[in-house]
Amino acid sequence: MANPSILILAGDGIGPEVMAEVKKIIGWFGDKRGITFDVSEDLVGGCAYDKHGTPLHDDTMAKAQAVDAVLLGAVGGPKYDVLDFSVKPERGLLRLRKEMDLFSNLRPAQCFDALADFSSLKKDVVAGLDIVIVRELTSGVYFGEPRGIFTEGNERVGINTQRYTESEIARVARSAFELARRRNNKVCSMEKANVMESGILWREVVQEIHDKEYPDVQLSHMYADAGAMQLCRWPKQFDVILTDNLFGDLLSDMAAMLTGSLGMLPSASLGAPMANGRPKALYEPVHGSAPDIAGQGKANPIACILSFAMALRYSFDLGDEATRVEKAVEKVLADGVRTGDLMGPEGGTPVSTAAMGDAVIAAL
Amino acid sequence: MANPSILILAGDGIGPEVMAEVKKIIGWFGDKRGITFDVSEDLVGGCAYDKHGTPLHDDTMAKAQAVDAVLLGAVGGPKYDVLDFSVKPERGLLRLRKEMDLFSNLRPAQCFDALADFSSLKKDVVAGLDIVIVRELTSGVYFGEPRGIFTEGNERVGINTQRYTESEIARVARSAFELARRRNNKVCSMEKANVMESGILWREVVQEIHDKEYPDVQLSHMYADAGAMQLCRWPKQFDVILTDNLFGDLLSDMAAMLTGSLGMLPSASLGAPMANGRPKALYEPVHGSAPDIAGQGKANPIACILSFAMALRYSFDLGDEATRVEKAVEKVLADGVRTGDLMGPEGGTPVSTAAMGDAVIAAL
Ligand SMILES: CC(C)[C@H](C(=O)O)[C@@H](O)C(=O)O
Ligand SMILES: CC(C)[C@H](C(=O)O)[C@@H](O)C(=O)O
Repeated sequence: MANPSILILAGDGIGPEVMAEVKKIIGWFGDKRGITFDVSEDLVGGCAYDKHGTPLHDDTMAKAQAVDAVLLGAVGGPKYDVLDFSVKPERGLLRLRKEMDLFSNLRPAQCFDALADFSSLKKDVVAGLDIVIVRELTSGVYFGEPRGIFTEGNERVGINTQRYTESEIARVARSAFELARRRNNKVCSMEKANVMESGILWREVVQEIHDKEYPDVQLSHMYADAGAMQLCRWPKQFDVILTDNLFGDLLSDMAAMLTGSLGMLPSASLGAPMANGRPKALYEPVHGSAPDIAGQGKANPIACILSFAMALRYSFDLGDEATRVEKAVEKVLADGVRTGDLMGPEGGTPVSTAAMGDAVIAAL
Repeated sequence: MANPSILILAGDGIGPEVMAEVKKIIGWFGDKRGITFDVSEDLVGGCAYDKHGTPLHDDTMAKAQAVDAVLLGAVGGPKYDVLDFSVKPERGLLRLRKEMDLFSNLRPAQCFDALADFSSLKKDVVAGLDIVIVRELTSGVYFGEPRGIFTEGNERVGINTQRYTESEIARVARSAFELARRRNNKVCSMEKANVMESGILWREVVQEIHDKEYPDVQLSHMYADAGAMQLCRWPKQFDVILTDNLFGDLLSDMAAMLTGSLGMLPSASLGAPMANGRPKALYEPVHGSAPDIAGQGKANPIACILSFAMALRYSFDLGDEATRVEKAVEKVLADGVRTGDLMGPEGGTPVSTAAMGDAVIAAL
């Protein structure tokens, strides 16, 4: 049987640095555990634009469609701010999401014990926090047509369209309910049904899928503004939050920041099952390309390493190996090993990106 | 000369209770300061629906157009959840905003010293916080066409349209820059220009207005997801935040919650100048109708009282009188007078809604 395949798209900014540490860990799995991956690499984002004039070359797109899992670093940087919308680094990422049909984006917001003091929130509000935001990732205002900047009379008008079909809502709702069953069995769905008809349809379909297929899961609905408030006030009230592409963008970033563990948070974007029964999948850290610290060996590779752990669990059925990686990360943190972003008043051992990766490997 | 006119729309839930305290204060101004307002009252929201079958009667709309300022309590409640979208309580409020053309919604997020401990954020992160979110209030996805739930093939599709014209962006940008000049001269504009063309236009127009008319104001741009993060991380980095209707809805609620002073926060929604040079205006607390505590004398009337103070300042050119009300509120808080929502570990004197209003009047 062929080895499982991985396409690495390290991208821009700190992407290549943090991905270098993941490659070490992939190597460790081959050497020490006899689990070998076929790894290929390619470009996405600004670096792809620099080489090909497009943030995602068609060949790269084809490779991404063919592998078992894509690992992505980060895209974007100030250098590319001047580019036209259609070739901005982000378009590469959005094309991957759309064409691979990765409709379910799982974004854990988890507070690591060793880091609870880093949150701007009070320790008791975030300590032990462990929630997941399930964000719809292939539709909504990110992709709806018509869109663009038009001229009407003597002025410009900017237009985007929020658009959700019943089946788009249903499939991401199912993935949230499935996840909730493996966790604390609670889903809170967020929209603006008091203002937007697309939110009304969202609420109705989520409720229908729940009543027909997942009546055992506890379901509640909240307006997204109230949801943002409640996430700030007492995030532990949630287990799984289900929401659309745009609200999910804001709410998941916010939730990640709440934990104080931004440099630690992975994400998985999952699509429909492939022939082998596993979902199409892309894994990436929640943090961005952090151009301000790129190339300096300062970046924290843990979010990217934990994204690989998610790949082990969701794409390769290697849940135990995933846990092994997660436990190694916990040990390293407990030992006080710290990249710059994790240095707090109580100190610790300051390390570079590479040394952090080495520490995780040592702990494995 | 005629007295300045006010239309009170107390609305649903705790609206009537908190508005009763404002009426006392309006009375006090007549008795003690010789400043008399012509006050009329009418219905909005669920109570208007109960009486007229619509959340805002045309007569009420006409009255709102004719007065110098509208004071609104709150709308909505679970009783009305079953109503059709077109007659939900919120539609009354949205109609007022739209037809009065109240394009600039000022939402201060201010942390009251006496209440800094109430925030879920660490005290040093929020103590002394004083920022204002300027939210566009009459356009964007709240009002864009086409909208609705349609059938396509054999399934339903929910559609809303985000739509901004250049002039809509320009006028709210001006109001943010004007406000910044009277504060700390900094505006941060938030959108998703990396994903939405309407965000690109937003960013361009804000920059143009800045460069042409307000080059003295410090302007920055941030993606709304990063903005949500930064609001959680270190909100004091901001002075004035300028954003659209939908992002403004989430970000302002979140910012309000951060302060720990939700029951304390007023808002002003301002339109174009009327014949007398003052803007059309509606003032309302940031909090909602809180149906769970309605009718029990538990609600905190301060947000509504401070909304009236904003009216004194923005609609009636009575800045000194506004400050008088604000100082009275501060004194009452410093004295430890507390409605239930303000009761913390260090105690205080628990009071009812009415007693809180009386305390403010005693302090005036
Ligand atoms: C980079 C950008 C296009 C992207 C998004 O808006 O989805 C990012 O913010 C994210 O959340 O993954
Ligand atoms: C009640 C609702 C329609 C309203 C909104 O979404 O604008 C509210 O959340 C607000 O922020 O004033």
